Amino acid sequence: MTLATKFMTLDGPFKMHRGGFIESPTLAYETWGELNEAKDNAILIFTGLSPSAHAASSGEDQTPGWWENMIGEDLPLDTDKYCIICINSLGSCFGSAGPASVNPATGERYGISFPTLSLEDVAESAYQVVRRLGIERLHTVIGCSMGGMSGLALCVKHPDAVAGFISISSSARPLPWAIAIRSLQRELIRSDPKWQGGDYDPGDPPITGQRLARKLGMISYRSPEEWEKRFGRERVTDVGPGDEPFRIEFSVESYMENHANKFSGAFDANCYLYLSRASDLFSLAEHGGSLENGFRRLKLERALVIGTMTDILFPIHQQHQLAEGIRGVCEDTWLVELDSIQGHDAFLVDMDAFRPVICDFLECAGQFNK
Amino acid sequence: MTLATKFMTLDGPFKMHRGGFIESPTLAYETWGELNEAKDNAILIFTGLSPSAHAASSGEDQTPGWWENMIGEDLPLDTDKYCIICINSLGSCFGSAGPASVNPATGERYGISFPTLSLEDVAESAYQVVRRLGIERLHTVIGCSMGGMSGLALCVKHPDAVAGFISISSSARPLPWAIAIRSLQRELIRSDPKWQGGDYDPGDPPITGQRLARKLGMISYRSPEEWEKRFGRERVTDVGPGDEPFRIEFSVESYMENHANKFSGAFDANCYLYLSRASDLFSLAEHGGSLENGFRRLKLERALVIGTMTDILFPIHQQHQLAEGIRGVCEDTWLVELDSIQGHDAFLVDMDAFRPVICDFLECAGQFNK
Repeated sequence: MTLATKFMTLDGPFKMHRGGFIESPTLAYETWGELNEAKDNAILIFTGLSPSAHAASSGEDQTPGWWENMIGEDLPLDTDKYCIICINSLGSCFGSAGPASVNPATGERYGISFPTLSLEDVAESAYQVVRRLGIERLHTVIGCSMGGMSGLALCVKHPDAVAGFISISSSARPLPWAIAIRSLQRELIRSDPKWQGGDYDPGDPPITGQRLARKLGMISYRSPEEWEKRFGRERVTDVGPGDEPFRIEFSVESYMENHANKFSGAFDANCYLYLSRASDLFSLAEHGGSLENGFRRLKLERALVIGTMTDILFPIHQQHQLAEGIRGVCEDTWLVELDSIQGHDAFLVDMDAFRPVICDFLECAGQFNK
Repeated sequence: MTLATKFMTLDGPFKMHRGGFIESPTLAYETWGELNEAKDNAILIFTGLSPSAHAASSGEDQTPGWWENMIGEDLPLDTDKYCIICINSLGSCFGSAGPASVNPATGERYGISFPTLSLEDVAESAYQVVRRLGIERLHTVIGCSMGGMSGLALCVKHPDAVAGFISISSSARPLPWAIAIRSLQRELIRSDPKWQGGDYDPGDPPITGQRLARKLGMISYRSPEEWEKRFGRERVTDVGPGDEPFRIEFSVESYMENHANKFSGAFDANCYLYLSRASDLFSLAEHGGSLENGFRRLKLERALVIGTMTDILFPIHQQHQLAEGIRGVCEDTWLVELDSIQGHDAFLVDMDAFRPVICDFLECAGQFNK
């Protein structure tokens, strides 16, 4: 958190979607661009599982954000035209209330006493922030990965509060293969003796489990096609010390190791578990008893569904399903299938493919306008 | 091991492909059907990573084998016509020498003092068994998954010893995504404190790591398509005791748990590590400096390459590559792409799809003959 981070504390008990409540949760967020007088130019970004609210640099915080070069003057999320808001998801650990924050009722960290988190809670808490900023109707809600489902939750819970929706590499509900991956990631963390049933010392977290979960994440976030091109059967030049028979030898192993090392410690383990579980639990069908009924509740004017052909976590047929469902209630729904080779992660790394599409949909000025 | 298991001990030091040797290794194997006088009706099966030599039941061992209903009278591997041999891979733990067996030089288990294992060693040790049985030229070598690569190693090392080759859901060399999965599986086992750097008590092995590795295995052995049809978002009726927030709730989680429980303890952890690593290391290109040169060394009369469209571990384009490579030196090469939904594991579970193809290639009599 830096000077760019703003905080808002919601008053009173916040009722959780699956039962229980938390007392006066704080939400961290950042904004770029100005809200106009009519307050109808706001774009709300819901993040994937791990990012903070720091989507882009600004005068107050010049470090690059996780979606740098997407937000700014003459960029697809044009700060001359729009007021961009990114909120750190409820349940996360970058300023918003979650398992790693202190329960005001006990003065101790919530840990796994935090009630079950749902993406509906992520959506509802963000909605309350937006309302407190005086915004009645968002120009557009954008969600990437898990954030796409959080965005959909907002659209279905408060249909009048959202005019446009952009879903990026997400879905109306996760499929069992993705659930299996995430379930195993959680088990890797919970199997680390240092997890201590969720009651670990924050200074001595289950790093091993988190590193292993991160590696499994990489396996599902990228694509076999990309790795075949990028690594093939290339070996590392330095195979590491000693003659330990299972040491790193292939470049792809070294790549995973480097990513796991970068990640370690940056994210609270319990927060990860809660957000991961919330992703699995989400289904639009919960809203009205079926997917069809869920879609029928939306009141969108425009929608854009983007996915990549190589995404194995939220495969392309889920993008079709989502776009077709929304199109049933919103004629102006675009479906864009990108052939990015980077799989699920493409929206973070293949910006050249995503920028023109988002720019086109948001009618931005500047170089990315076709 | 039962009365059906035969043993053969190779004389003297067995030189390993990547350096070192082991003293007089024993190989466990089973046979079905009779070797004819010309000794030209033998079919050798190389297994995947985990099976034993018990591929099918027999008079001596009536328990079903891992490829039951593929081997027998009037079955594709017709015991009236062929003598079928299945060898427990060198490095495994079902009667053959490996990290779990005793090093005659020390009187102690090899553990990770076992030299680096290669599929060339699996192939060479099997070749020596076959030669000792008096067979100069195998009618056919069949290999499933890892076994397909062991089989290819035999074909390239001893081109005159193999007339026909059947590769099932395998490849000429693994790709980085598959390597990443196996590398992480090994790390899950090695990260279990009970692994003890490889020096665990056989009575108290790293079961947790093995269970986790098994779950990751399931994720790569089956297919997203199958799980979507089979489980969807179905929940288990019994969500388990207590209110632990990450307990099993989805049917797919319960399915993985049951499989992991079945597997535990049945396979020695170090043997698993060695065979898994050997799979990653294999490349036909090692034989002659390039894949092209490797293929050029083969002297096959007939070959059959089978794969499934839903295999994510050895994807279908690898089947094309393998079939095309073999066809360059062996005109009578068949490529069969099955649309089995069970992914890599289809050869174990979708027998109705595999039987007619193998039967056709081996010109078996009986019901599976088209």
